[in-house]
Amino acid sequence: MKRLAVLLSGRGSNFLAIHEACATKELPAEVVCVVSNKPDARGIEKARELGVPAFGIDHKQFANRAAYEAEVIATLDRHAPDFVILAGYMRLLSPDFVARFRHRITNIHPSLLPSFPGVDAQRQAVEYGVKVSGCTVHLVDESLDGGPILVQRSVPVLDGDTPEELATRILGQEHGAYIEALRKLCGGYRVDGRRVIFD
Amino acid sequence: MKRLAVLLSGRGSNFLAIHEACATKELPAEVVCVVSNKPDARGIEKARELGVPAFGIDHKQFANRAAYEAEVIATLDRHAPDFVILAGYMRLLSPDFVARFRHRITNIHPSLLPSFPGVDAQRQAVEYGVKVSGCTVHLVDESLDGGPILVQRSVPVLDGDTPEELATRILGQEHGAYIEALRKLCGGYRVDGRRVIFD
Repeated sequence: MKRLAVLLSGRGSNFLAIHEACATKELPAEVVCVVSNKPDARGIEKARELGVPAFGIDHKQFANRAAYEAEVIATLDRHAPDFVILAGYMRLLSPDFVARFRHRITNIHPSLLPSFPGVDAQRQAVEYGVKVSGCTVHLVDESLDGGPILVQRSVPVLDGDTPEELATRILGQEHGAYIEALRKLCGGYRVDGRRVIFD
Repeated sequence: MKRLAVLLSGRGSNFLAIHEACATKELPAEVVCVVSNKPDARGIEKARELGVPAFGIDHKQFANRAAYEAEVIATLDRHAPDFVILAGYMRLLSPDFVARFRHRITNIHPSLLPSFPGVDAQRQAVEYGVKVSGCTVHLVDESLDGGPILVQRSVPVLDGDTPEELATRILGQEHGAYIEALRKLCGGYRVDGRRVIFD
């Protein structure tokens, strides 16, 4: 059983899907804690309802990012996670944080990377006029949305789509993509450059 | 009936697919000429076998790009094309050439743009480690592979794919994508920023 820590800032729909996949044994893992930089995030509330230890650590209460991250890391360390799963976590991680959990942090991004990294990926896609977009689950490295890719799934972009409509269609693929990626990681892997080789 | 001029440098597999789609009336168009910068391109030979006027205009025989392009443009003008279709044409077009046929030049690129523009797109995709790639048919503007997108189709990238294997899988989607894009253009359209609006 792998131990998963989830970082989130919002409603935590990916967290819920991952938690459910653990409950049904689709994932050989358990969510050992949830941490949010927003103490009032819906995801924190949901975690508590599900009996998952959940911690609101308000970044605005800390003097700087290092102090905030030290508290997050201390919290994570008490739960000894195998993986740190970003699920709508709206803070950038420092290189020190990334190094601390090297090749063990995952993120999901609502575009087919390397297209449209950064914020508002779905709006970027609509404005660029692509006809295919999707989501990417990747290992986190020091770059912005540039780490080794684990899973990608595509969706069509339809004429007249708003960013919100595209976001909804992509979200429909995100949970399955994230669970597929975590299942592969839980089975063992190594990283060779940009390539992740699964056992 | 729309008049199509095809520019190519190689075997012309997209040209052949487009010619066939005209013959079967799938496209309300005809290929009125083929031009290649390589006089011995297989695509030129095929065009002649099919009775399509074909011109090898060797860029190495001209003092500079402007002189070469003037000859290409003169050749195209004699055939009054509605569209200039790049089909494996390995020369960059000058801004003057692009302006001369504004919003009437199409290209196909073997990636899901804006990922992996430029040469060797399939190798770029394999080396980046994407799990989804594909092809993009777009209008040509002054940028490198950056014009408004008409059609995109995706293919999976499989573990262990070589660039050649991925290229073959993408090519399997290229002909259909190109014909779909041309059928839409033949029906009438206007360009609004990065968006192509079909009638």
